[in-house]
Amino acid sequence: MTKTGADILVQTLAQNGVTHCFANPGTSEMHLVQALEREPRIKSVLCLFEGVATGAADGFARISNRPAMTLLHLGAGYGNGIANIHNAMKGNVPMINVIGDHATYHRKFDAPLTCDLETLIKPHSKHIGIVESADIAGQIASEAFEATNNYPKAPASIILPADSAWNSATIEGKKANPHTPTLIEGERIDDCAHAIKKAQKPVILVGGDALFDDASLENMARLKAAGVRVLIDTFPARQKRGAKIFAPDKMQYFGEMALEDLKGVDLMVIAGTQIPVAFFAYPNRPSILVPEGCETLQLTEKYENTIEALAQLVGALDAPPAPQLPDAKPIAKPEGKLNAFTCAQSLARLMPENSVISDDAVTSGLPHYIALQGAATHDWLCLTGGAIGQGLPVALGAQMADMSRKVFALSGDGAGMYCIQSLWTMAREKLPIVTIIFANRNYRILNIEMARTGASNSGEPSQMLSLENPNLDYVQIAQGMGIKAISATNCVEFDAALENAINANEPWLIEAII
Amino acid sequence: MTKTGADILVQTLAQNGVTHCFANPGTSEMHLVQALEREPRIKSVLCLFEGVATGAADGFARISNRPAMTLLHLGAGYGNGIANIHNAMKGNVPMINVIGDHATYHRKFDAPLTCDLETLIKPHSKHIGIVESADIAGQIASEAFEATNNYPKAPASIILPADSAWNSATIEGKKANPHTPTLIEGERIDDCAHAIKKAQKPVILVGGDALFDDASLENMARLKAAGVRVLIDTFPARQKRGAKIFAPDKMQYFGEMALEDLKGVDLMVIAGTQIPVAFFAYPNRPSILVPEGCETLQLTEKYENTIEALAQLVGALDAPPAPQLPDAKPIAKPEGKLNAFTCAQSLARLMPENSVISDDAVTSGLPHYIALQGAATHDWLCLTGGAIGQGLPVALGAQMADMSRKVFALSGDGAGMYCIQSLWTMAREKLPIVTIIFANRNYRILNIEMARTGASNSGEPSQMLSLENPNLDYVQIAQGMGIKAISATNCVEFDAALENAINANEPWLIEAII
Repeated sequence: MTKTGADILVQTLAQNGVTHCFANPGTSEMHLVQALEREPRIKSVLCLFEGVATGAADGFARISNRPAMTLLHLGAGYGNGIANIHNAMKGNVPMINVIGDHATYHRKFDAPLTCDLETLIKPHSKHIGIVESADIAGQIASEAFEATNNYPKAPASIILPADSAWNSATIEGKKANPHTPTLIEGERIDDCAHAIKKAQKPVILVGGDALFDDASLENMARLKAAGVRVLIDTFPARQKRGAKIFAPDKMQYFGEMALEDLKGVDLMVIAGTQIPVAFFAYPNRPSILVPEGCETLQLTEKYENTIEALAQLVGALDAPPAPQLPDAKPIAKPEGKLNAFTCAQSLARLMPENSVISDDAVTSGLPHYIALQGAATHDWLCLTGGAIGQGLPVALGAQMADMSRKVFALSGDGAGMYCIQSLWTMAREKLPIVTIIFANRNYRILNIEMARTGASNSGEPSQMLSLENPNLDYVQIAQGMGIKAISATNCVEFDAALENAINANEPWLIEAII
Repeated sequence: MTKTGADILVQTLAQNGVTHCFANPGTSEMHLVQALEREPRIKSVLCLFEGVATGAADGFARISNRPAMTLLHLGAGYGNGIANIHNAMKGNVPMINVIGDHATYHRKFDAPLTCDLETLIKPHSKHIGIVESADIAGQIASEAFEATNNYPKAPASIILPADSAWNSATIEGKKANPHTPTLIEGERIDDCAHAIKKAQKPVILVGGDALFDDASLENMARLKAAGVRVLIDTFPARQKRGAKIFAPDKMQYFGEMALEDLKGVDLMVIAGTQIPVAFFAYPNRPSILVPEGCETLQLTEKYENTIEALAQLVGALDAPPAPQLPDAKPIAKPEGKLNAFTCAQSLARLMPENSVISDDAVTSGLPHYIALQGAATHDWLCLTGGAIGQGLPVALGAQMADMSRKVFALSGDGAGMYCIQSLWTMAREKLPIVTIIFANRNYRILNIEMARTGASNSGEPSQMLSLENPNLDYVQIAQGMGIKAISATNCVEFDAALENAINANEPWLIEAII
């Protein structure tokens, strides 16, 4: 059988190790859909909304360290995927977004779905490849694979016009070389070590892959033992945590709290991330979260090898060994009112070893983050780019990346609605994800922010931030998408529901009325 | 109380006649939310997903002929709204998208939600205004209002940095002049009349406002009486229809059927629209839907006054009066299997005078379109830009534009999921919309398109186009968002459910299992 451009594109990605395609196809992608069906190395996963597809690709890469592909339908389909591509951009997560377009000769006719796709995708594409003819499909695919995997990793886009997909092609793209971040020179290590020794109150701010690298976490513990406070980004893509693992401090979310926390710091060494800035600006509050008079030194940029640099810095400082950490202690069943803290106690109590937490729980997330530090080993996946709605799809992708791990999606009731269609794909793919919706009937974070910005008229909660009238019933919504679900209004119900869901071999949703 | 830039922006829009804001706010829009609460002339409507907000603004303007504003949160929020802004672009529907951005001085810091917003919004903005400082908020608002309302109408965007929203301002923007499309010269009328008289088989293709203008519909009937076949665009934003109203023919969706339908046509006069093109390209099928050898003549461009030009053309041709049309006949209750045809029979039977149909039913839409021609007078709103998912939000906006009309949202079970969050806002605002979901458990149109593109591997339906395993239960989904809902599996159930829903004074969803 003659191969098409779509076949060659798909085979080249498969050859490079792509194993999953999260898809929401349309007419212009029919040949790509068929090429995917002919390629046994790639599993196609149907999503009912494009934000589910891009969020899943993000979660998949965070856990597997391999990019997934997505299949999106022209500008409108890509548009629906942008919010979660944005999160992946900010988290430096690789993915390959394949966007079907009209046939090359059809683009000029202003058909209903025509739009200026090349401009639209620019802000959220590290790299753009356009398959102008079928013969370059392989080359474009391998270039996109290479680009998304190069440090700093970020989403790449391929525009695949329909005729480039259906015309015949022969030349498969090449297999990309393995990617490693750039090693830095010893001089920079020495400069940082020297500055640290001289400083009264030095901190190091770490981001990127080091946060889930065992040796790096050990090295961070040693830096702390050497008198360097270790901080990490507020919202990293992935952090390995648990009772037996060194717990760095986090940059605080609210700027004024961050600066209070950093009072007296005279040196900030930055490794694998950038100078900390406030999430939002507020009237008369600072944007840059470095105390006045504090020196900043860049140990490594995002494209450089932070893991290696941390090891060398430990050596240069002759840092003492890390203290032994105690095992996780048994945690009691929570009692009293159900709230984010008692929910967190149940999760800390029941969560199995090697779990994955996809956190989109906004105000309910922090109590869980704190409680789980002393619990079983797990990976915590943050909302990297601030576009709420990624909790469910990221969990979906994370689970498909590793079916042996227990995956939890934590979501606010506001955040959960943006990509609620994720539940259907969880059901269809029989993914034993435990989704917990914290139902406070509010965009609670916005009520806090409203007060902070000084915008409130009356001090009364704004109706525009309330999710009441009617209350969302997540149990019915989940059941409507084929997911078993239960509502919990007290600690006993929640704890039992969670235990049951963790032991089930199918997806469950728990609505925690808090 | 001192006014802010946000106050001035909101007041200027209100002064120009903006009455509704469909909103999904975030932290950077807190001052805008408060300004809206201080402005009694604008009703703020909370949407749980931005595609609901932009789709609602589209539906609102189609029925009211006035732009609504939306409130969107930076690039990620705007991204979620793009698909329905795209539909409004293609339908030449006005709206003013107000996108909150970081404070001007904060943009350079690469905070999590920062993105290149100006590039991102370019493809779907007829006009872009950036409120670089609070004092120009009024001017920017009135310019955006003017731009979106100028022919050809299309969405305008305003970027509102947070500090421009919170800083104090005084200068309100001006009230825009009323907008009228350009009148064309008599010469063009004469040329078209002359060509029509000379032609063997002339057609006129009409688009835009004329399709819901009584006099224009009458004039189209007279053109037909004069021997000119009248066609309209396949997917117009709004068409006035019913037994007593002239029924132009529609350009066929599939290119080869369109060309078959136009066989022998030697003149195509084009009024208020563009040369017809195929929705998608297919291997070895034409893109332009004009028969070979057929002359095309542009009577009016989209920015010109088609309503007036049609009247003049009727005069120049001395067209005979339009024939009297019979009243709608009573329609019998359907019998037999429930399918799109029998559903359509129930709707034609029960639909009250002056209804609005928002059609996103894909393959189930056409049987309804045909059946309702002989029914009560109504407006039919099409999926203008091919981005499925607009049926529910457009209905939402249409209902808020006119609470006295009965509004129906027709949606496929695939299409319905993209903006399913619309149901919650329908419940919250107590909008008596009747949503009908045609559940065929398929992206059926794609199974048809798959065969047409010649892409199918085996002739078997692709699993990537199937919505089974699990089936969506729209009744539970709707109830979960506070909407009454019922499933119908036969004609009797459907007819009774529809009658009940039409008479109810609250939203209802009917899931038609077809």
